[in-house]
Amino acid sequence: MEQVRVGWEELVLFCQGVFQRLGLSDEDARIAASVLVAADARGIPSHGVARLRRYIRGIETGQMLPRASVEVLMETTVSIVYDAHGAMGAPASVRAMESVIRKARASGAAFCCVRDSNHFGIAGYYAMMALSEDMLGIAMTNTAALGVPTFGRLAMYGTNPIAFAAPADEEGAFVLDMSTTVVTRGKIEVYERLGKELPEGWAVDRYGQPARDAHSLLEDMLHRAGGGILPLGGAGEDFGGHKGYGLAVMVDILCAVLSGAPFGPALYDTAESSGRVSHFFGALRIDAFRDPRAFRQDMDRMLRALRNCPPAEGATRVYFAGLKELEQEAECRRLGVPLIEQTYSQLCAIGREYGVSPPSILSQTVSSSSSFSSSSSRRHNLLPSAM
Amino acid sequence: MEQVRVGWEELVLFCQGVFQRLGLSDEDARIAASVLVAADARGIPSHGVARLRRYIRGIETGQMLPRASVEVLMETTVSIVYDAHGAMGAPASVRAMESVIRKARASGAAFCCVRDSNHFGIAGYYAMMALSEDMLGIAMTNTAALGVPTFGRLAMYGTNPIAFAAPADEEGAFVLDMSTTVVTRGKIEVYERLGKELPEGWAVDRYGQPARDAHSLLEDMLHRAGGGILPLGGAGEDFGGHKGYGLAVMVDILCAVLSGAPFGPALYDTAESSGRVSHFFGALRIDAFRDPRAFRQDMDRMLRALRNCPPAEGATRVYFAGLKELEQEAECRRLGVPLIEQTYSQLCAIGREYGVSPPSILSQTVSSSSSFSSSSSRRHNLLPSAM
Repeated sequence: MEQVRVGWEELVLFCQGVFQRLGLSDEDARIAASVLVAADARGIPSHGVARLRRYIRGIETGQMLPRASVEVLMETTVSIVYDAHGAMGAPASVRAMESVIRKARASGAAFCCVRDSNHFGIAGYYAMMALSEDMLGIAMTNTAALGVPTFGRLAMYGTNPIAFAAPADEEGAFVLDMSTTVVTRGKIEVYERLGKELPEGWAVDRYGQPARDAHSLLEDMLHRAGGGILPLGGAGEDFGGHKGYGLAVMVDILCAVLSGAPFGPALYDTAESSGRVSHFFGALRIDAFRDPRAFRQDMDRMLRALRNCPPAEGATRVYFAGLKELEQEAECRRLGVPLIEQTYSQLCAIGREYGVSPPSILSQTVSSSSSFSSSSSRRHNLLPSAM
Repeated sequence: MEQVRVGWEELVLFCQGVFQRLGLSDEDARIAASVLVAADARGIPSHGVARLRRYIRGIETGQMLPRASVEVLMETTVSIVYDAHGAMGAPASVRAMESVIRKARASGAAFCCVRDSNHFGIAGYYAMMALSEDMLGIAMTNTAALGVPTFGRLAMYGTNPIAFAAPADEEGAFVLDMSTTVVTRGKIEVYERLGKELPEGWAVDRYGQPARDAHSLLEDMLHRAGGGILPLGGAGEDFGGHKGYGLAVMVDILCAVLSGAPFGPALYDTAESSGRVSHFFGALRIDAFRDPRAFRQDMDRMLRALRNCPPAEGATRVYFAGLKELEQEAECRRLGVPLIEQTYSQLCAIGREYGVSPPSILSQTVSSSSSFSSSSSRRHNLLPSAM
């Protein structure tokens, strides 16, 4: 499979143009485009411009409402609850995180729920907005129920990602951005395409037994017939599956129960679009605890020590959360953003439909011999998924 | 192996008496005792009164200072940073969480770091203090470095537990209390005693390869020769090991980097006592987001749905985080707190040394045929560990 590289800003402008034609305001279109492209640039193409078609369908079917006006349901000096009324996830979330940061600037800490929103892209994007403010950033979202409780057999919660960002100096930042299930649906879909048997410990079938056949699992998940993905830690309690399950439910509580929104199996995707979801954002001012300069220096010490940890025999490098993504971003700034050929073709088709010129190709490589392919397998997801 | 049951309050009074003779104030002794016994009552004996001997040694060696005065380093309306100056972990932590709750009452949300503290027992205890206030509670602590980074071979972070509590009505509460490693040292120690081979995915040896021999792993961990426990998610990235690793580092950042305390491999235990550690506490007022009554009702709906999830074939029940512990507590209120015979004998010996009468035995059973033994295997840890 081939990949192309296109200019970062050109790719943003292209997506922005499409979103504008779909009825988003100029500013919302810019935000929605920036968040999508940030995913590709950080090596998470499952959340990148490959999702543009799905966003278009979401808007066409009325699942996503580009002109919805976001309502404030509740507000204190440290909290705010928004009802997004079906707005696009990214613009609603950027504005929500901006308000969290503004509030935290004044009061030291602030938190926000956004209910009745839509797919917001990579959670890390919002957590990272706190970094330049010398704040710790937090972002979570619930998703369609795909995860099966420990000892259960039905999907009862989403892949519910958690993002946490803390600034460093020379080391950049610690940016954790993780789904709370072992893998996401996108990974299962890749195995379906490749005709590969699923590893034991990723998912269970409708009887709660190890699911090995990706196709029938996806069918059962789509029709909500039972089965689904296992929590981080896998099946049972021996490897801590009950912990991942607990984390996923915690995310559902913070996003949805705290904002009075639907939770658990009440959330599901359709063939056309992701279901309406809820988010949770937070920011903590570092200087409410400690001199931020000293904090960042200690972060440098910590992160440097982690990446200098001697690798296991057979391994080449040790990372810290966000390091791979930071390096990937730097590469994209130099060389452009990588897109698999299939995604680029899709963008060209969308461009023709909406009368927007696609970004021009900067370089073209056969993925199997490119640096792109040497990155971790989760960068190769072909279909929408979370980390 | 036999177990005995003793009265809850009698067991607290016994530990309190010992702590008083060790120099703790009456109030601190009461708190330290209550937190220990709560662990046994919640089915987490690894953090219960079996630790009393280790606490005594900690005090004898000067690692734990019963009369240390806790200092406020920093304070705002939403934050407070304490230096515990080597105080006992539980009393310092209960007071810290009380101040967090007091601040959250006034400002809606509050957070606290406690640095230079000691082993604080079960993290869930502090998170649960928020429940009766209609708040969400958060508690974390770092621990001696026992966890190996993804792709690494040296222990660089602790088992770093995260606790999160959210109130319900009829269902009690959701109480997540989890270490961020697959298992804890206590589990490895149990396997050593039983002479059992470690399951692959729990730990790696000094070369970063799967560790199967518990004894040599524990030796290497004690001498910090390399090797250690794997993060939640196991080895590599295929099952999300990088996620557990990220969560553990997040806990270290919130507890230690945010308070200017030692982190990572700078924290280690000795044969006598656990190392000095740091904690992080938080509370969020639910009514800053939503009517707490409506919140609790939705929590009931959520938790009921989770425990009513049809079990996998071969499984009997589905739980939510905190349900097993809630049931165990109720049983202990009726029947007394279970202690394995070895722990009870140890208490009697301590009682003789310090002139405190041990709690009397309410009942005695052979564990292999008692209800105690039918609970999950992690309730059977014989030695100090975390969940």
